[in-house]
Amino acid sequence: MSLLTIGTVAFDALETPYGKTDKIIGGSCTYIALSSAFFLPKVNVVAVVGDDFPQAYMDTLTSKGIDLEGLQIKQGEKSFFWAGKYHNNMNSRDTLVTDLNVLADFKPAIPASYQDCEYLMLGNLTPQVQIEAIEGLAKRPKLIVMDTMNFWMDVAMDDLKRVLKMVDVLCINDEEARQLSEQYSLRTAAKLIMAMGPKTLIIKKGEHGALLFQDQNMFYCPALPLEEVFDPTGAGDTFVGGFIGYLAKTDDISFENMRKAIVYGSAMASFCVEKFGTERLLEITDQDLEGRVNEFRELARF
Amino acid sequence: MSLLTIGTVAFDALETPYGKTDKIIGGSCTYIALSSAFFLPKVNVVAVVGDDFPQAYMDTLTSKGIDLEGLQIKQGEKSFFWAGKYHNNMNSRDTLVTDLNVLADFKPAIPASYQDCEYLMLGNLTPQVQIEAIEGLAKRPKLIVMDTMNFWMDVAMDDLKRVLKMVDVLCINDEEARQLSEQYSLRTAAKLIMAMGPKTLIIKKGEHGALLFQDQNMFYCPALPLEEVFDPTGAGDTFVGGFIGYLAKTDDISFENMRKAIVYGSAMASFCVEKFGTERLLEITDQDLEGRVNEFRELARF
Repeated sequence: MSLLTIGTVAFDALETPYGKTDKIIGGSCTYIALSSAFFLPKVNVVAVVGDDFPQAYMDTLTSKGIDLEGLQIKQGEKSFFWAGKYHNNMNSRDTLVTDLNVLADFKPAIPASYQDCEYLMLGNLTPQVQIEAIEGLAKRPKLIVMDTMNFWMDVAMDDLKRVLKMVDVLCINDEEARQLSEQYSLRTAAKLIMAMGPKTLIIKKGEHGALLFQDQNMFYCPALPLEEVFDPTGAGDTFVGGFIGYLAKTDDISFENMRKAIVYGSAMASFCVEKFGTERLLEITDQDLEGRVNEFRELARF
Repeated sequence: MSLLTIGTVAFDALETPYGKTDKIIGGSCTYIALSSAFFLPKVNVVAVVGDDFPQAYMDTLTSKGIDLEGLQIKQGEKSFFWAGKYHNNMNSRDTLVTDLNVLADFKPAIPASYQDCEYLMLGNLTPQVQIEAIEGLAKRPKLIVMDTMNFWMDVAMDDLKRVLKMVDVLCINDEEARQLSEQYSLRTAAKLIMAMGPKTLIIKKGEHGALLFQDQNMFYCPALPLEEVFDPTGAGDTFVGGFIGYLAKTDDISFENMRKAIVYGSAMASFCVEKFGTERLLEITDQDLEGRVNEFRELARF
């Protein structure tokens, strides 16, 4: 089934206790597309970069089945750039640089060939841009999944609440769920957030796994305990990319199938953190993924 | 199978965002015994109280199948007293009062009728007292499970390392596992801690569930997301009490059965936090427990 993902394609410079990188490929859309493309022959992308974005990076994405017709390249402008440094426990980080550059006036333009979109993934972006993306589609997709972050709760809550009414699945982390609902209990928070629009809620808890809520149903997927987390950048986007990629591949949006999709997303994320940036995602084989999913099965069964 | 638990029987005074209590029954041994007695016709207890400890509390324990022959009552002395106040998120607390009283010179004396002990649960106590308890048994039990806390890592690490070599299962929380191993990754921490003696390690993660490690095997039991945590006091002891109670009932210490024991322990703990102190534990029915275990099944399956 056709999947369209909208978000950022960017440069990241990362520093973790294991080392640091120069500018490498990053951005929510990059991780989502690489992860979901693992499940699908083709993933469509709407995003924007400057003319500094290397052709080699674009070729890498294309080689993985990512269609770049919707990638705007702004001549004379620079790509979005984020630099961050992770603390020793990898659970917190400092943002060192955020240069919006081309992102500052990004208008999502959806190519005609993407209009058959049945699965839409809105990566973390200004809520207003997320709304424009939905409104840019002639036909409402079968499933719209959105990511967001606490920053938009601070500066654009009204827009955020508008887009929440337009989507089917919201994917946020535990702190964000608490901020959005003003409730500490995640179960109570989930109820309140689902009443804001999305019928399904995913709460990411990092090394503690992920929760899936819909009506009275709950699913808790543990995270696989890892010996080393090399670089957590992109893990959340890889997770949600695997989630929607699996759903689009199986074309089954039942809660039962979403449980499996969460596990596949978690498995993809567990690979992502094993190397810097997107490096590990580019290497995974079908066998790797099935092996990892079996580790999750073994981890959770009783 | 016969189960002996050693720990504290005490007074607690608790304050949570939901209210506060006067002195009520508390202590590691109390919660462990109440939880494990749910699975067994009889649970033996070795602990100490002062002459201020109410007969009514002892009658309550006895009515639940807890044998108090091993409960020393020190005339003219006071029971151990702990007062604490939980912060709004319930994940952290301040200790307001710790009066050791009778606990200061507690020597575990094991009655002859307890010597057939096959399952031994060492609740949180001075490591030295835990060693004396093991040495007070003529025959080594089939399974020894111990709890401890960061305090003993700070002040009695040598003794703690001695007792670790004598037990089969260690049950600690994630912070304690990191402190004991000096490793952030819980998977790496588990390896190092199991090399210190216990072949099996349980890492409690509070609202994030619990991990079970043995050799190359791992099991992650999620915690049931609750709408309200009324009072977390005793949840860890209730958890480990349910764990060893289930093992003693089924008399099967395979890793496969330990997975189930962790779920039963988690279910017991999920009840414990629903009311103040031991209140909720005294009300649970078999049907309640089976219903709750089914909720865990539903939560974790995919």
